[in-house]
Amino acid sequence: MFNEYDVIVVGAGHAGCEAAAAAANLGSKVLLVTMNMGTIAQMSCNPAMGGVAKGQIVREIDAMGGYSGIVTDKTTIQFRMLNRSKGPAMWSPRAQNDRLRFHEEWRIMLENTPNVDFFQDMVSSLLIKGNTVYGVKTAIGIEIKAKSVVLTNGTFLNGLIHIGEKRFGGGRMAEKGATGLTEQLVELGFESGRMKTGTPPRIDGRSINYAVMEEQQGDEDRGRFSYSNVELPKDQRSCYITYTNEEVHGILKEGFDRSPMFTGRIKGLGPRYCPSIEDKINRFAERTRHQIFVEPEGWNTVEIYVNGFSTSLPEDIQYKALTKIPGFENAKMFRPGYAIEYDFFPPTQLNLTLETKRISNLFFAGQINGTTGYEEAASQGFIAGINAHQKVNDLHEVILKRSEAYIGVLIDDLVTKGTEEPYRMFTSRAEHRLLLRQDNADIRLTPYAHQLGLISDERLEIVQNKVKNSDDIVSFMRNKSVEPGEINSLLQEKETSPIQQNTKVFNLLSRPQIDIADLVNNYAPLKEFVNGFDKETIEQAEIKVKYDSYFEKELDMVSKLQRMDNQEINPEFNYDQLVSLSKESREKLKKIKPRTLGQASRISGVSPADVSVLMVHISK
Amino acid sequence: MFNEYDVIVVGAGHAGCEAAAAAANLGSKVLLVTMNMGTIAQMSCNPAMGGVAKGQIVREIDAMGGYSGIVTDKTTIQFRMLNRSKGPAMWSPRAQNDRLRFHEEWRIMLENTPNVDFFQDMVSSLLIKGNTVYGVKTAIGIEIKAKSVVLTNGTFLNGLIHIGEKRFGGGRMAEKGATGLTEQLVELGFESGRMKTGTPPRIDGRSINYAVMEEQQGDEDRGRFSYSNVELPKDQRSCYITYTNEEVHGILKEGFDRSPMFTGRIKGLGPRYCPSIEDKINRFAERTRHQIFVEPEGWNTVEIYVNGFSTSLPEDIQYKALTKIPGFENAKMFRPGYAIEYDFFPPTQLNLTLETKRISNLFFAGQINGTTGYEEAASQGFIAGINAHQKVNDLHEVILKRSEAYIGVLIDDLVTKGTEEPYRMFTSRAEHRLLLRQDNADIRLTPYAHQLGLISDERLEIVQNKVKNSDDIVSFMRNKSVEPGEINSLLQEKETSPIQQNTKVFNLLSRPQIDIADLVNNYAPLKEFVNGFDKETIEQAEIKVKYDSYFEKELDMVSKLQRMDNQEINPEFNYDQLVSLSKESREKLKKIKPRTLGQASRISGVSPADVSVLMVHISK
Repeated sequence: MFNEYDVIVVGAGHAGCEAAAAAANLGSKVLLVTMNMGTIAQMSCNPAMGGVAKGQIVREIDAMGGYSGIVTDKTTIQFRMLNRSKGPAMWSPRAQNDRLRFHEEWRIMLENTPNVDFFQDMVSSLLIKGNTVYGVKTAIGIEIKAKSVVLTNGTFLNGLIHIGEKRFGGGRMAEKGATGLTEQLVELGFESGRMKTGTPPRIDGRSINYAVMEEQQGDEDRGRFSYSNVELPKDQRSCYITYTNEEVHGILKEGFDRSPMFTGRIKGLGPRYCPSIEDKINRFAERTRHQIFVEPEGWNTVEIYVNGFSTSLPEDIQYKALTKIPGFENAKMFRPGYAIEYDFFPPTQLNLTLETKRISNLFFAGQINGTTGYEEAASQGFIAGINAHQKVNDLHEVILKRSEAYIGVLIDDLVTKGTEEPYRMFTSRAEHRLLLRQDNADIRLTPYAHQLGLISDERLEIVQNKVKNSDDIVSFMRNKSVEPGEINSLLQEKETSPIQQNTKVFNLLSRPQIDIADLVNNYAPLKEFVNGFDKETIEQAEIKVKYDSYFEKELDMVSKLQRMDNQEINPEFNYDQLVSLSKESREKLKKIKPRTLGQASRISGVSPADVSVLMVHISK
Repeated sequence: MFNEYDVIVVGAGHAGCEAAAAAANLGSKVLLVTMNMGTIAQMSCNPAMGGVAKGQIVREIDAMGGYSGIVTDKTTIQFRMLNRSKGPAMWSPRAQNDRLRFHEEWRIMLENTPNVDFFQDMVSSLLIKGNTVYGVKTAIGIEIKAKSVVLTNGTFLNGLIHIGEKRFGGGRMAEKGATGLTEQLVELGFESGRMKTGTPPRIDGRSINYAVMEEQQGDEDRGRFSYSNVELPKDQRSCYITYTNEEVHGILKEGFDRSPMFTGRIKGLGPRYCPSIEDKINRFAERTRHQIFVEPEGWNTVEIYVNGFSTSLPEDIQYKALTKIPGFENAKMFRPGYAIEYDFFPPTQLNLTLETKRISNLFFAGQINGTTGYEEAASQGFIAGINAHQKVNDLHEVILKRSEAYIGVLIDDLVTKGTEEPYRMFTSRAEHRLLLRQDNADIRLTPYAHQLGLISDERLEIVQNKVKNSDDIVSFMRNKSVEPGEINSLLQEKETSPIQQNTKVFNLLSRPQIDIADLVNNYAPLKEFVNGFDKETIEQAEIKVKYDSYFEKELDMVSKLQRMDNQEINPEFNYDQLVSLSKESREKLKKIKPRTLGQASRISGVSPADVSVLMVHISK
């Protein structure tokens, strides 16, 4: 019934979809197996992509030829660049999306990817011979062979849904869970654990009083996620902000004795930075209010998502508390919030390629690795898909460095340090975040993705032009001087001191009060020079000028740190020979099998002294 | 958490959606409870609406203010008027639909219906006091009160899916089944049974060779379902036709010993007129081929539906046989076909309003009553929704007569005769099908729906104008004579005998070779007269002229039969007093409690002699 595939991807969420697309675009024959073709790329949680650090990840995926950015752009109902008032390393694109369109657009993209086949069924076990996977077996009993398998099971593995004291099996509300895989993997020697996540109730927008809430519109001058100039929907929809209060908190507390979180029913740890409302009022007892972010679910539906009100309290408590939030007095609930527990596999069991150490050609991506977030999942899927292809074709591993991409930070963190609770990306996790910006993901990653074969010559050329043209603008500004009479009225208007003598444009732009648009509009030679260049190119030049010195320092730091990350360690290295290593350190090193000295140094329990010991032996 | 509703509708398929809309539009406060808001109005089977007799039903629903016609028109990817070459009673509109859009459009329509609220959960039991329902209880334990409840559970009640020898619970593939309700209803004294239906495999359209199939395009001059002039999508997509052959049949037979149909695993009866492919080759062993109708699933997806190849044979047999069908040699399967067994309740347990006899204010509609087909379900939901509203407001019952609507035939058949196998509508089931045409559903039903409050004054006026204007056209043709010189060249061209003297236009149009377009184009006074009238009005005049004598005979027949149908029987009538009734007859009459002598006469087992006995007593 099926020929052998190169790659089988199990699960069609953000991770699975990116994995399938990446492997297929590299030339692999891919089968995407999903329990329900009607829920491909279903946004399980809120209808939004991006945000701080996460937006950067989506741009990185896009820069390398993944689809998340394109799908997001096509289905955006609101776009905002967060943190615009801060430095460019903090600028983070976020989009609200039409949930139904997002699913549809992903499906269209995948159907238009020639090497991706589809099959609807539940994968109940892996076909394993020795220590190598060679396919999957589905619930209806079909065996499908493949050279490699990527598991992206999300919250479906033994999913258990909680609402108050009620529990029932399911992978998402109203959807079946998946069984069989965890048990087999544990039998094969994998360590598994339980995690927990949750969603808020969904509300009938017709029952909400928006007038008492704060409206949040999209950016007027909209950005985008994809570097490939997808046509954006013309209009935007607003979100709204309101707040809980002490009355709300009081009502929620009434339900604590029936909360699966507090009665000990839920064993798995939840996402610390995306906590349930009961968790928030419990942990931050001093706070008298928490923000509620009201997100529309799409262009055409009245359904809304009550971000910030995730809860697994009994539905009567959810409802009663909700109606005490300004604007929700007459709220009608479409669906109550719930928590879900699911199996994950501590990601220290993986290589940096996301291949499991125990079973060859088996890759894990997404929530199965203990992460939370669409973007974190998508990027892992993307890298797993690439490496699955590389592996079965005897090609080199694809590992992004921590200095190259948030994706590199994410995977290195997971594999090196593991995670006890759902791992979410933050800018603070990246030591080189000044370099890992949303504006330069293409410059950082597109040339490499082009080498891999994921990016067309045309797209590479666009990036090369962006680099060249922005450099040219910078050179022009370095060389060109302005006379006081040409510019002093602008400087005065912007409340910065006038110049007394001819001054380089570069130096003027370095002033925090002045941005490049001011200079372009007030200084004709610059206007003429940038004429024809696109917005992103001009912005890139501006960023280079304004943050030049920071970037240089950062690059210097990278090259110093890089030395450690360039010192490779043979995966077969015998740590037992190093008697001076601490016992803990030896155990951890044997388990993680770090690929570089840098990675070794990031393992918790490996001390600087241990690293020195290692360094000495490796340099030999 | 919930206020009391007037009507709770359980299930959001075709029946549930129409029920919710109808009751709400009459003014009831309605709650639509569905297991999954993402599958509202999901087309479970093929992506098409209408067809012979079924298309008429959709137009009837539309004529009365239901939504199915509007949703169908908005999401049509291909429209054909079937049987155009036959008489107008046989003309039957059929549309192929975009499956995803159909769901979305229904949801938008319902969200824009002010009195419809939504809740996502499974209804696990009814709240009953004495013999009256007063609400529902959901799986998570919420009790919601209502004055009436409409059950439209489709194939979900104890749904059991079969593929070959494999079985698993589910309401549709990849969706959970519903439990609890059947058991409670049986405990309350309801009789339940099992039925079976099935679907074919879904195929990757990219793997199909359309070149060897017969293309079927949509009508160039497209019709529509709704009388309310919805804007239609501009383009159309083609369907394709191919055939099975003896090799295919031979392969399928190899799987018969593993077929749940033939091994006795499936106990429920399947739809006779929509049989599985194994059923067809088994029952019609002499036929060497069966038609396969290849339907696209939507505008943007490559998925296709293999109509005519419904099967629950093992998936390897499905696949092997499929690849021997011309065009499917390299087919890739998205999902295998399957059969599903589910609970139904013999509909003789219902009144003609679709209220159950046993429990007051409880209504059943759709597959729960043993029917098959989207249109049959939608129309029952529509009538049940209306009657639920009428009942809780002490308003009169709404029962369509067999001479008024296919919907009347459907419900009368179900309630009076019951059904042993999934009931499907055919034109042959209607004794007055000459009157029950797709072109006059508005004339037949819109005035009544206007009285009920389901139709706006504007829509009524449009129908009144259609009647008046078409009558005027007929009068004009009756009165106006044509001279031989004006028309004989047309008559010759159309190969019908020329006229020798002045002749009424009416008489010319009565000739089968001549249609009204010919006359309009060749006879200026008629062209001038009809100028400004719409297509349907002119067509109505044409139909009146051409089939005038048939209609008169039919109306005569109706008025004769009507006498029996006008003779009402008190539901409390004591049949035991009629000693001369046969035992079988008495039992059936006591069970069915016919509302009229006409209905009594249609009960199987009630002989003409019994009817005479009854008539005598009732006339007293």
